Amino acid sequence: MTQSVIPVNLPQNAYEIALASDSLDRLGSWIKSLNLGRKLMLVSNPTVFGYYGKRAVASLETAGFEVHHHLFPDGEEYKTLDAVSQLYDAALEVGLERNSTFIALGGGVVGDMTGFAAATWLRGINFIQVPTTLLAMVDASIGGKTGVNHPQGKNLIGAFYQPSLVLIDPIVLGTLPEREFRAGIAEVIKYGVIWDADLFRQLEAAKRLASPSDISNQLLHEILMRSCQAKAEVVSQDEKEAGLRAILNYGHTIGHAVESLTGYTELLHGEGVAIGMIAASRLALALNLWSAEEDARQAQVIGNAGLPTTIPPGVDIDAILAKLQTDKKVKDGQVRFVLPTSIGHAIVSDRVPPDLIHETLASLQKETVQT
Amino acid sequence: MTQSVIPVNLPQNAYEIALASDSLDRLGSWIKSLNLGRKLMLVSNPTVFGYYGKRAVASLETAGFEVHHHLFPDGEEYKTLDAVSQLYDAALEVGLERNSTFIALGGGVVGDMTGFAAATWLRGINFIQVPTTLLAMVDASIGGKTGVNHPQGKNLIGAFYQPSLVLIDPIVLGTLPEREFRAGIAEVIKYGVIWDADLFRQLEAAKRLASPSDISNQLLHEILMRSCQAKAEVVSQDEKEAGLRAILNYGHTIGHAVESLTGYTELLHGEGVAIGMIAASRLALALNLWSAEEDARQAQVIGNAGLPTTIPPGVDIDAILAKLQTDKKVKDGQVRFVLPTSIGHAIVSDRVPPDLIHETLASLQKETVQT
Repeated sequence: MTQSVIPVNLPQNAYEIALASDSLDRLGSWIKSLNLGRKLMLVSNPTVFGYYGKRAVASLETAGFEVHHHLFPDGEEYKTLDAVSQLYDAALEVGLERNSTFIALGGGVVGDMTGFAAATWLRGINFIQVPTTLLAMVDASIGGKTGVNHPQGKNLIGAFYQPSLVLIDPIVLGTLPEREFRAGIAEVIKYGVIWDADLFRQLEAAKRLASPSDISNQLLHEILMRSCQAKAEVVSQDEKEAGLRAILNYGHTIGHAVESLTGYTELLHGEGVAIGMIAASRLALALNLWSAEEDARQAQVIGNAGLPTTIPPGVDIDAILAKLQTDKKVKDGQVRFVLPTSIGHAIVSDRVPPDLIHETLASLQKETVQT
Repeated sequence: MTQSVIPVNLPQNAYEIALASDSLDRLGSWIKSLNLGRKLMLVSNPTVFGYYGKRAVASLETAGFEVHHHLFPDGEEYKTLDAVSQLYDAALEVGLERNSTFIALGGGVVGDMTGFAAATWLRGINFIQVPTTLLAMVDASIGGKTGVNHPQGKNLIGAFYQPSLVLIDPIVLGTLPEREFRAGIAEVIKYGVIWDADLFRQLEAAKRLASPSDISNQLLHEILMRSCQAKAEVVSQDEKEAGLRAILNYGHTIGHAVESLTGYTELLHGEGVAIGMIAASRLALALNLWSAEEDARQAQVIGNAGLPTTIPPGVDIDAILAKLQTDKKVKDGQVRFVLPTSIGHAIVSDRVPPDLIHETLASLQKETVQT
């Protein structure tokens, strides 16, 4: 059995990412080693809980924990303060205490909301991430970003709050819809472009990346480990996004805007990021930051993963530009972009000319990128 | 002009408490020295904003800031997630950014809610406290406890989030209702009992403490400075309440329960604390932790401040005991009490026999303490 333990070396809140097949059945013993309180609240959604709830609960109860559970409705549209408020009620009902623990078993929505509840219930209780989507495994579950959406923008309400443990069991990807798998691959490609050229080359070599069946177990473990390492390294150097961490937003500036303008229903987050990476690459090309060949290589890998590469018809370019102004990353009115400078490296810039943004977006709406 | 600057030496979030008469008119220049962004949202309630809003806004605008404001309805019953949610909407409307600042101008309710909004808007923006009640000056504004009430308990939802500055202008106490002044004195007495015997002796010497007119400007400055110092010292040693900080909850265990059972309308927070300190002192006496003479001295000072010393009629003792079990400080079902061991010193104990709690509470309901 392949097992990796990846440290997240934060100065005040160090923790580990445990990555191993069938680790879900060892969840209880992992948590026991952390010396937390006896009471746990497992938080999930009906779909994921239906697949894996029993195994998780059994493992926790065997380890001697008092286990309660709460289910959020399934979907990004329920990532609201209201839904978190219902989790508060459940926490009160079962009497969670300061040494109690919330466990998020699910994708990014469950993880972000449960983390926010953990950050804010009794001013902060223990929190453990058990991500069940590829996207959550390689991104959302690591680094302590928690929160909910505001009707007018994603993740506008939230907190930085680190988990005590992230436990990843790749086996659970077997029940993940293929479209969501591909959306997760978008973030993996991101790490290749901004941080880990070797990971990028492995993705290139794989040719097809559109389904788990395209990828060997060994490559999957490698993808998970390298992505988690990339995230952990960046976050350890800049927990609160004062500098370096901003590069993780590669593809997210345009991605968030397009997701938002399609009502968070048409595109998955990773699909928005794929479109955003195509756009950012074009901006970098126009600014002579990187080459047409690198732009094409990235487009090829994104295409191999079956991800979208154009802006959906019906999304107005001026509306995207307006939306960019409400992005959390706007500073004194300047929109920040992450731009690649070579495979494995990226920079942050708030000096992209608005005209160029407009032109680039327009070009991504009319054409279909050839891959 | 007397001016004191008290450092709060937190390892990661050091800041200062500035204490000076008429400092409200220098709010803008104080904040300017902190190098924050241009946009500010001043948060207050209609009463306080009516008294001091103009002066604060004028000072901020003179210093070159773009100033917006938002008013919460006045009163503890509006310390809710809903009210904070409306502040989020206002923040979005005026486009607060990550380097923008929330300023709380008001008492503990305004400060706690504004701090929670600052902790959670865009995962945390700048925050400044300008407390206008004695209670907020000596307690709530220092140390980073922020939050809102849950229908079933005070401050159950919240976060630890430090301000960048606390600015205290004692002049504003001139418009504070006398009952609220006395409620603030309860927390000052608390610091005397648990931390600063010299402060306690100054309070004893003053004889009457029931109104600002009982107290010289010099004594008021001394009270504010020593109380802020006590809080700053304790919080610096234990920001997240892992140990020492718990002593600040002296009088709060019973106090919170009685406040809650009277619907947060009959008693002010400080009045609950006064009753709680009387109760904790009796428990300490029964457990031979301190003497009848010390118990009497504390009761005398609390009486001199015109604060309540008995449990209001109609509050059921068993209901208090049940309520204690929902306290945030409960750990594995054990209620924690802070108990004085001599004037200036206190310990934390979770081994007070339930029978003794019951008996002590019953004695505080039937009698009137003679002072």
